[in-house]
Amino acid sequence: MSAIATSMTSPQSLIEELALTARSAYMKLAEANAAQKNRALKAAARAVRADAKKILVANAKDMAVARKAGMSKALLDRLMLNEARIAAMAKSIEEIAKLRDPVGRKLASFKRPTNGLVIERVSVPLGVIGIIYESRPNVTADAGALCVKSSNAVILRGGTDSFHSSQAIAACMQKGLKSAGLPIGAIQLVPSTDRTLVGSMLTATGLIDVIIPRGGKSLTDRVARESRVPTLLHLDGNCHTYIHAKADPKMALAVLLNAKMRRTGVCGATETLLIDKAALGLLPKIADALIAEGCELRGDASARKMDKRIKAATDEDWTTEYLDAILAIKTVGGVKEAIEHINRYGSHHTEAIITRDKKTASQFLKEVDSAIVLHNASTQFADGGEFGFGAEIGISTGRLHARGPVGVEQLTTYKYVVRGSGQIRAK
Amino acid sequence: MSAIATSMTSPQSLIEELALTARSAYMKLAEANAAQKNRALKAAARAVRADAKKILVANAKDMAVARKAGMSKALLDRLMLNEARIAAMAKSIEEIAKLRDPVGRKLASFKRPTNGLVIERVSVPLGVIGIIYESRPNVTADAGALCVKSSNAVILRGGTDSFHSSQAIAACMQKGLKSAGLPIGAIQLVPSTDRTLVGSMLTATGLIDVIIPRGGKSLTDRVARESRVPTLLHLDGNCHTYIHAKADPKMALAVLLNAKMRRTGVCGATETLLIDKAALGLLPKIADALIAEGCELRGDASARKMDKRIKAATDEDWTTEYLDAILAIKTVGGVKEAIEHINRYGSHHTEAIITRDKKTASQFLKEVDSAIVLHNASTQFADGGEFGFGAEIGISTGRLHARGPVGVEQLTTYKYVVRGSGQIRAK
Repeated sequence: MSAIATSMTSPQSLIEELALTARSAYMKLAEANAAQKNRALKAAARAVRADAKKILVANAKDMAVARKAGMSKALLDRLMLNEARIAAMAKSIEEIAKLRDPVGRKLASFKRPTNGLVIERVSVPLGVIGIIYESRPNVTADAGALCVKSSNAVILRGGTDSFHSSQAIAACMQKGLKSAGLPIGAIQLVPSTDRTLVGSMLTATGLIDVIIPRGGKSLTDRVARESRVPTLLHLDGNCHTYIHAKADPKMALAVLLNAKMRRTGVCGATETLLIDKAALGLLPKIADALIAEGCELRGDASARKMDKRIKAATDEDWTTEYLDAILAIKTVGGVKEAIEHINRYGSHHTEAIITRDKKTASQFLKEVDSAIVLHNASTQFADGGEFGFGAEIGISTGRLHARGPVGVEQLTTYKYVVRGSGQIRAK
Repeated sequence: MSAIATSMTSPQSLIEELALTARSAYMKLAEANAAQKNRALKAAARAVRADAKKILVANAKDMAVARKAGMSKALLDRLMLNEARIAAMAKSIEEIAKLRDPVGRKLASFKRPTNGLVIERVSVPLGVIGIIYESRPNVTADAGALCVKSSNAVILRGGTDSFHSSQAIAACMQKGLKSAGLPIGAIQLVPSTDRTLVGSMLTATGLIDVIIPRGGKSLTDRVARESRVPTLLHLDGNCHTYIHAKADPKMALAVLLNAKMRRTGVCGATETLLIDKAALGLLPKIADALIAEGCELRGDASARKMDKRIKAATDEDWTTEYLDAILAIKTVGGVKEAIEHINRYGSHHTEAIITRDKKTASQFLKEVDSAIVLHNASTQFADGGEFGFGAEIGISTGRLHARGPVGVEQLTTYKYVVRGSGQIRAK
């Protein structure tokens, strides 16, 4: 079934070979300075522009296969490249080059009073990162650039559908590395679409340091289930907006409308509205606006009493990430009940409160157990770019290491550098 | 085989019950302030002192069973409690109470120029932590105190051998929580020694947020292999000391002797000496001192040429964590070769260079890919207490989240708190 044969090599030994090449490139990257990495990225952006035709030819191959296979229009659009999209890809690489260097930063420094040892905590790369993604070919450029910027070596496992496009883009990234005197092994694309290779990546403990999936639920679920390598995962984004009794009515309407309808398919889209019973009077106007934009409403009995157009919600609605123009509506007796509902049914991603009352807002921000909590702002701000991180490799819903947007800083770890003058430890 | 029957409950449902109790306690802890947590810890320390007799009686039960089962002297010593050890346990809890509160700290704060949103990164607890340990009963007090200090709820799974001791200590910890008005579910000891319960903890995704094993290689290996819950792990500590050509001879001898022989069973003990060929002249004196303290030496051909008492090393010696009075000795041609040897054969734990040359030291500190790197100091400083973190729950050799000593700060994660005035995201 694979477009490119793996010839005689077993999946394990192919991944091992890629990982050893990556490890050696990573050691070289550790010696490079920020200017050299940025030169590589800028050269990669130039190569993407210069090779735009080659990339388009490769993409046309992928598109032809996908059309023949009856790929949906939405997926075809995700796969499709044109000159504007290629220019945007090059621009994105240049933006990443402009970011502050995330490695070699002194995160903390302290002198031990007892013995004079000076201890520094310094940011360093994670190592060899494996990124598994689906049909979006631009991930090849974005993920490659984010990893090089943070001095990590990356093994990219793109989707079968975008294989030729990704190959052409990866070649440009490697041109950039080469022209700056950095090893091309820092960005490698798995040279086969054999599906068993994903399994080999997920079990490559000691060879790959971190696995990051970028794609839909089935990919993420597989990685969560199978990976023996530590992961940074994005699970569900079942986000909430709570309209408190003391919300400004106009603000509540505008923010909720944006939180639900700006884009319904993104992880920061609000899926459930929690409305305070003291704010139920706002519901008919809110329903008008949402229905006018094509949103289906599903609510509890109190909500339905306020507006007959609201359908009946079931318990399943409280836990569903629709990623669609559907909004669940739950009436709550106050902030305490709103917090409890979110912590019980939510996915710890992003939640907002709309209120003029600062004390209530503080309680919500403190007690809601989510990666991102907002006061008087749209949940759709859950995005690395909006946080000023530059490009992001995803949004982590895990609690270890990185929570929320994963940008170049989150692709680093740290080490302790200890300077002494012959100190020995007492018995 | 279990000392305490699990009655009719299945392992999964017992762990689920404990985890739900822990989750609800964790939610309550999130509302507690630092003073309240510290009151609980100080009361727990008082309870440990007041109940010393009860703890000793429980410990005597464990000791009797262990002696009957033919437990080794070293393990019996680890299991044994006396009044001094109980006093030390209480003191350690009080020391943890004195530490700076690790949660609710503003780690970063920035205002977005484009829309005025104010974004803060604030430290928050990890959630529900599962700690699996072996026969050392004091872990019950230490780990419980570290978790409460960092507002985490903990499920403790102590060793079968120390079951009664751990129960008595856990009861004191819960007395402390109760007297400060905090839920006793914040520190729970698994009430059974059924071994299948460990497996149930390792697969309790969504119920337990992090698993931390504290024990020997077989326990850690099992956790690394089986856990579906994210882990903080301590794998090998195959540490190196590199004596450079420009090392001060007296310092080199004193630091190496301490690094190898202060305690040979700790993870920060040096296992391999890398000696610069230009420093080989120091070897006979070093060998004298080590042999005098009962250390076996295994070296390469160049080292053995310098001193006939050195036995022949094999490749296996370069990767072995002896945890014993044995030192491998490898001759290297310079700092580059030393770095390559460490990054290839080491376990990325702790390594030291002894030199008067600052430039060489800088290169070593930068390019050695380990959690802790030291210049002119003993590798035995690899310890949370020596870093000023107070007690530690272990030393992490993983790259994600925490690297090196895991103290209360490493038992936290963060969330983003965003404050706005009605901002919506542009299309």
